Amino acid sequence: MSHPISLGLDFGTESVRAILVDTQGKQWAIAETSFASGQITDTLPGCGKRLPAQYALQCPGDWIESAATATRAAIEEAGIGPDRIVGIGVDFTSCTMLPTTIDGTPLCDLDTFKATPLAWPKLWKHHGAMDQTEHMNEIARQRGESFLLRYGGTIGLEWFFPKMLETIQNAPEVAEAAEVWLEAGDWFVWQLVGGAADTLTRSTCQAGYKAMWSAADGYPSTDYFTAVDPRLAESVANRLPGVMRSPGEVAGTLSSEMATRFGLAAGTPVSTAIIDAHSAVPGVGAADAGTLVMVMGTSSCHMLNAVTMADVPGVAGVVEGGILPGMFGYETGQTAVGDAFAWLGRLLGLESFDSISEAAMQLPPGADGVMCMDWMNGCRTPLMDGSVRGAFTGLGLEHGPEHLYLALMEASAFGLRWIVEMLRDGGVPIHRFVATGGLPHHNRAFVEVYADVLGAEIEIHPTTQGPAMGAAVLGMFAAGSKASGFESIASAASVMASAPQDRQTIVRPRAERKETYDLLYPKYRQLAHAIAKSQI
Amino acid sequence: MSHPISLGLDFGTESVRAILVDTQGKQWAIAETSFASGQITDTLPGCGKRLPAQYALQCPGDWIESAATATRAAIEEAGIGPDRIVGIGVDFTSCTMLPTTIDGTPLCDLDTFKATPLAWPKLWKHHGAMDQTEHMNEIARQRGESFLLRYGGTIGLEWFFPKMLETIQNAPEVAEAAEVWLEAGDWFVWQLVGGAADTLTRSTCQAGYKAMWSAADGYPSTDYFTAVDPRLAESVANRLPGVMRSPGEVAGTLSSEMATRFGLAAGTPVSTAIIDAHSAVPGVGAADAGTLVMVMGTSSCHMLNAVTMADVPGVAGVVEGGILPGMFGYETGQTAVGDAFAWLGRLLGLESFDSISEAAMQLPPGADGVMCMDWMNGCRTPLMDGSVRGAFTGLGLEHGPEHLYLALMEASAFGLRWIVEMLRDGGVPIHRFVATGGLPHHNRAFVEVYADVLGAEIEIHPTTQGPAMGAAVLGMFAAGSKASGFESIASAASVMASAPQDRQTIVRPRAERKETYDLLYPKYRQLAHAIAKSQI
Repeated sequence: MSHPISLGLDFGTESVRAILVDTQGKQWAIAETSFASGQITDTLPGCGKRLPAQYALQCPGDWIESAATATRAAIEEAGIGPDRIVGIGVDFTSCTMLPTTIDGTPLCDLDTFKATPLAWPKLWKHHGAMDQTEHMNEIARQRGESFLLRYGGTIGLEWFFPKMLETIQNAPEVAEAAEVWLEAGDWFVWQLVGGAADTLTRSTCQAGYKAMWSAADGYPSTDYFTAVDPRLAESVANRLPGVMRSPGEVAGTLSSEMATRFGLAAGTPVSTAIIDAHSAVPGVGAADAGTLVMVMGTSSCHMLNAVTMADVPGVAGVVEGGILPGMFGYETGQTAVGDAFAWLGRLLGLESFDSISEAAMQLPPGADGVMCMDWMNGCRTPLMDGSVRGAFTGLGLEHGPEHLYLALMEASAFGLRWIVEMLRDGGVPIHRFVATGGLPHHNRAFVEVYADVLGAEIEIHPTTQGPAMGAAVLGMFAAGSKASGFESIASAASVMASAPQDRQTIVRPRAERKETYDLLYPKYRQLAHAIAKSQI
Repeated sequence: MSHPISLGLDFGTESVRAILVDTQGKQWAIAETSFASGQITDTLPGCGKRLPAQYALQCPGDWIESAATATRAAIEEAGIGPDRIVGIGVDFTSCTMLPTTIDGTPLCDLDTFKATPLAWPKLWKHHGAMDQTEHMNEIARQRGESFLLRYGGTIGLEWFFPKMLETIQNAPEVAEAAEVWLEAGDWFVWQLVGGAADTLTRSTCQAGYKAMWSAADGYPSTDYFTAVDPRLAESVANRLPGVMRSPGEVAGTLSSEMATRFGLAAGTPVSTAIIDAHSAVPGVGAADAGTLVMVMGTSSCHMLNAVTMADVPGVAGVVEGGILPGMFGYETGQTAVGDAFAWLGRLLGLESFDSISEAAMQLPPGADGVMCMDWMNGCRTPLMDGSVRGAFTGLGLEHGPEHLYLALMEASAFGLRWIVEMLRDGGVPIHRFVATGGLPHHNRAFVEVYADVLGAEIEIHPTTQGPAMGAAVLGMFAAGSKASGFESIASAASVMASAPQDRQTIVRPRAERKETYDLLYPKYRQLAHAIAKSQI
């Protein structure tokens, strides 16, 4: 019995991973290939031109070349024929974006522009658009633009339009030549399906979370863009062709040329792209409404699908079809998680928390009166305020490093509870919690505090390849129910990507600690209010 | 030319120091003698009876014996005749107290009671009266006793009446035999002047700060004491003989017996006792009204004399003649200073602050946004709340240990500025700041932050013997103007105890930093309010 197989292509900052997964969730192969030029931060390939400090570019040829190599390697490792592969899914860093001609040729591949840095793809972490971001925010605030409300009142430095405006203002000759501006994930999918002008699909995920697009209103208004820069308004009107589709919806089928290059079968359906973080939602088998997927790492991104759009004050990023088709994707986040632990360790002069972890876990809930606000990098959800800062309170001469460590864990957990209560109060149901990312595996005690504070079970998904698996799930769904047997993304995700029972870790709340946390939580909220207010 | 000399006897917890100082401030000799029994915390001398953990007793014979030895040693070192010594001053730990017979014999010296721990002098740090303290506070609050207002709403565990009640309740046979209850400093002075029943002088300093006595109202009312315990009311009415006098006022003259024992001249005037900390006020030459003497160590005690009584909310401890005769003594304090630094060092894993001190001092005022409340041991002045706790706010991932260190210094300085502004707003003038104690010598940078935040010069007095010098000043004043040439304590203190010009350190505010602190101070107050409120 040979189950159909899907190819997931997971584009990171330094490399791409190709994963082959069948309809039963069996992983047949995974192969990783680094980008030849990696992150381009010092000098431009070819001409050797030096780049400003805040620049981070990439080479579009690398994406195709590395993805083809990784795919061929994976197929060889799996020992299967190309006809077994029924669908292709793609997740990509975002907002990584580039200008091209109308036929999809990156401008940096043209002789005219190969030595012009701003003609190259800007990597998500490129920070060259600081002035443009400030200007766009200022104009948006002055005009009281309502789209700001969907993003916590601030356009991000790493987003799409500031990066576009940077080129318009600083390299107008490039902007003049740019017939298409688009996300790298969309560009890659476009290339897979042939690159013809009328086959360009844009992902509602990238557009919704990084380009201020919404299903109801589209992009911000021409009036707004004109107030920012008339050239930006012209570009938005004329240089953003394509149709919007949700991740999992078919963007097209694999072209003969690309099939040859990748060692795949021509005509294989290709899913619309998705942002790498968001791909973890189907990637941990949680594509159904009501499951909060907590991707916990340096910072945390908590994602949730719901069947209804609710106006929840404090949630930044509600996008129709933003994560998966037919559902409203809610994105919330905590800006300092692993980062905050690393910072506290440095502050306390600790190599690791191993020496105090046990002492911390022996403390009663509430860390003997020490309370923390983990806003060391601002508060994304729910305050949506990058300027607030963290705190420790209740400090006494009797307290040691272990008190601060537990208090920081509790702050993160209380912050999550706040997000969960806010969503539920806003009418968005949550009935299941799945933790993934690096942190839950390294710090089980931390997840225990989460469970105690939430008063709910938390499943730790064992995967370290959530985004890649999510891409494979999307590729399988794009193959259609006839090929895959799946009628919905939720069932595909559940069957293909749920944690195997023998590798599933369920952390259950401890009743006594939960009760104490229920009493402490209102105090946390009171203190959060006081601290936030005193910093205004 | 032979200037008259005064003897200061400075009783600490482990030893007594005898200092000889002339009217020009020349120190002729200093000698220290330890108490034979030291602190009695494990077993009772003689019988070897074991003591409970919270007990700390002393032996009254030690005080006389050690003081005589130290005095003789000092006289020998100075090479002077006893007739050069014109006055004697005494400072003592407080509240160290004991029960005696009417002729001054300590009950623990009687065969009947030598094996009864509660017949022995209780050292200031004896903590056996926890139940009694709680009970007295509860009754006082229930009755809305107004005397509480002078002490921040709380009777201290180490004070006079809880210690008295402990013996009444737990060793009633001792209480029955106690004809006199008194402070150890008063007992010692009484012994010097002969120990006759009608020569007992009590210090307004000890009584005012430790026994809820005031010049206007005397002790708390009989009704209150009866409500606490009728036996306590009876004891207060009948077993507290003596007259109240201020430190510096003559308690009597040296008896022949004591003159022989100490190697002094009979008839030498003896000053009324003073608490050791308060003795630092004349001891640093600051006996005039309007000089804030900041004794900075583990905790800080800020003392100030004023010519008027002002009702300043938030000041605990305003005693008429409490520090010096004819003036109102204001006592304020910060509960964690050196203690807070030691705690922060432990927390940050630092052996000392040497490695980060320079980095901290290079930071701009305000520690790049980090703010601290140094309430790690509660807040004495002005909140008078032992239950509030400390905080660090404004914490970001970019902050390191040096930010916390500077913020802690600034918290202490802002706290002092709050005290100063409160006194000034209440109509109590302050025109001079003198810092003494161990901390200013070890941490000059800390005093610089104080000067910047206060916007005022701070004199660091070089002495490490402030209390002993204060006792000598009081002894000299008690000798009378004919013998000493001084018409006032202020002039005696100024001439005898001011820092010599070549050893004087004056720390001046830096204009630019002061300006920034003027802007930050309202934010500190706002945060203090928020933190205090959120902890209620």
